[in-house]
Amino acid sequence: MSDQNKGVVVQGRLIPFPSSISAEARASFARLVNEDGVPLNSLYTMPLPDDHAGWMKIKAAADEHYAAAVKGLSGALRAGVETIRTGDATIHIATPESMAEPDCAYLDFHGGALVLGGGEACRAQARMQADQHGALCYGVDYRMPPEHPYPAALDDAMAAYRYVLERHASSCIVIGGRSAGGNLAAAMLLRSKDEGLPPPAGLILLSPQVDLTESGDSFQVNQMVDVVLPGSLMRNNKLYASGADLSHPYLSPLFGDLSGFPPTFLQSGTRDLFLSNAVRMHRALRRAGVDAELHVFEAMPHGGFQGNTPEDQELAAELSGFVTAHWNRRALPKTR
Amino acid sequence: MSDQNKGVVVQGRLIPFPSSISAEARASFARLVNEDGVPLNSLYTMPLPDDHAGWMKIKAAADEHYAAAVKGLSGALRAGVETIRTGDATIHIATPESMAEPDCAYLDFHGGALVLGGGEACRAQARMQADQHGALCYGVDYRMPPEHPYPAALDDAMAAYRYVLERHASSCIVIGGRSAGGNLAAAMLLRSKDEGLPPPAGLILLSPQVDLTESGDSFQVNQMVDVVLPGSLMRNNKLYASGADLSHPYLSPLFGDLSGFPPTFLQSGTRDLFLSNAVRMHRALRRAGVDAELHVFEAMPHGGFQGNTPEDQELAAELSGFVTAHWNRRALPKTR
Repeated sequence: MSDQNKGVVVQGRLIPFPSSISAEARASFARLVNEDGVPLNSLYTMPLPDDHAGWMKIKAAADEHYAAAVKGLSGALRAGVETIRTGDATIHIATPESMAEPDCAYLDFHGGALVLGGGEACRAQARMQADQHGALCYGVDYRMPPEHPYPAALDDAMAAYRYVLERHASSCIVIGGRSAGGNLAAAMLLRSKDEGLPPPAGLILLSPQVDLTESGDSFQVNQMVDVVLPGSLMRNNKLYASGADLSHPYLSPLFGDLSGFPPTFLQSGTRDLFLSNAVRMHRALRRAGVDAELHVFEAMPHGGFQGNTPEDQELAAELSGFVTAHWNRRALPKTR
Repeated sequence: MSDQNKGVVVQGRLIPFPSSISAEARASFARLVNEDGVPLNSLYTMPLPDDHAGWMKIKAAADEHYAAAVKGLSGALRAGVETIRTGDATIHIATPESMAEPDCAYLDFHGGALVLGGGEACRAQARMQADQHGALCYGVDYRMPPEHPYPAALDDAMAAYRYVLERHASSCIVIGGRSAGGNLAAAMLLRSKDEGLPPPAGLILLSPQVDLTESGDSFQVNQMVDVVLPGSLMRNNKLYASGADLSHPYLSPLFGDLSGFPPTFLQSGTRDLFLSNAVRMHRALRRAGVDAELHVFEAMPHGGFQGNTPEDQELAAELSGFVTAHWNRRALPKTR
């Protein structure tokens, strides 16, 4: 090694799917690699940031894939849904069959690497979460690049939060985001603080993309170990930023002043490319005095095991518990 | 790959020490690898389980190393200490200069891969913890192999807990263990439950060796990535077990019935060989209904960055907060 003591050199090897996860999770892993042990997702390459046509093609293909998946789900979804516009933001408002928490709201930001996952997928996810939590779910169908780079998505997030704040007490709102949605949820809370809006009752960050500079260690250690996100999303990040500073807290909320954030639930997996994002955000929140809890699942890749595995069910149960506890906290006396 | 879809194949590569940790932590990393990027600790080989003389030689060398380190520390240690025997167990009882919590006790189990770390090192650690927490610290100098295999250490842990229970209310006792000490702390609580002893007020498990079968995924993913523990400790585990079943809950408490455990603080790092131990134990405790909190530090190897880094200080502050909160909880009304 020419530049000595700058890292560790690891040998190439087969890293087996471990016996420490469920059979369902192992089966999910096996579907996500080819016969040479290479993650199928690593065989795709995202377009360069200035390749508009390339991105539109990727988005169209993803939308088609999501639409088919949603069609398969539609029998299982029970919540009704209507789609509204506020400012430039589109919101899918899902209403469950029975409202366990009629005053409460779940404000959801979908994932999709800052480019994908809107439209029908977002609409279906709002219905799923309304079913799960027994409360209104507002799914934000934020604008995305290449047509709408930063700050369009964040502007839409702000418009959506203001819309929900007009209809619910802040103490009855829980905000959640998955992956890129975790970026927007956290960035939106930083900007809300700057603009004088109150914090919600709770925040959920699932494998959140809170550092668009990708400075975390897991971007190296879990490269090609994470079968869902095998490597860097820097092309997406640059497309999204469109020249804005990737390290600005509105783009990488990990680097913002997190004081005053509400109680926060963070999730990741030991094989997640974003593991460092989650653990660093947890530590940053704790340093800022925030009541933040971390949940890391054994061998889980980015976004879960991509199936209805016992591990994914366990995560769903933890989330339900967190949401209910924080919606209900408003009725309890302060104990600290 | 002959046996298809059984794992992911990763390429050999340099994994740099990341910019996401403190300069002090990076400097510590650099001291722990050679010029070829190989962890210095990987150059040692532990003896085979039946090589008694080999183990005694390793222990003597380690004791000498620890004694020198302790001599360097002795000016910084302020707590007084006396050493007592109860049954076959040796306990170092450290008394701080000023007692912030005169009724409380910290019962500590040292690390050292189930073979090392007793004697002067254990005695010094008891004094350090007494200084840190402003309370009596009982450091258990449990018997170890090759002279004393399982269940000697666990027997000593039980004797020590009974000794402390005779002198302090269980609600005023916090138990802590680091690495192998985390194994003994958790195994001792399982056996205490079986023998009808009350649980303590809190439990601290630092990068705990709770699975002697080494079934966790991080034993593979973090192999040679963790510069402190670069690979398997199976030789130690077999020496310790001396033929007992490694998967028995008294040897691998991860597999025990954890219901009724006290509030538990778990720590690990993303580069820790025992990362899976910590996250699996956290999940197992949560499934058992235990109030367990997980703290995972960015890029941290097993046992911390081996120096007084900001990350190690942050962990110490979290631990102080946990200990104080749980010692004091006895005085507060139950809020849930």
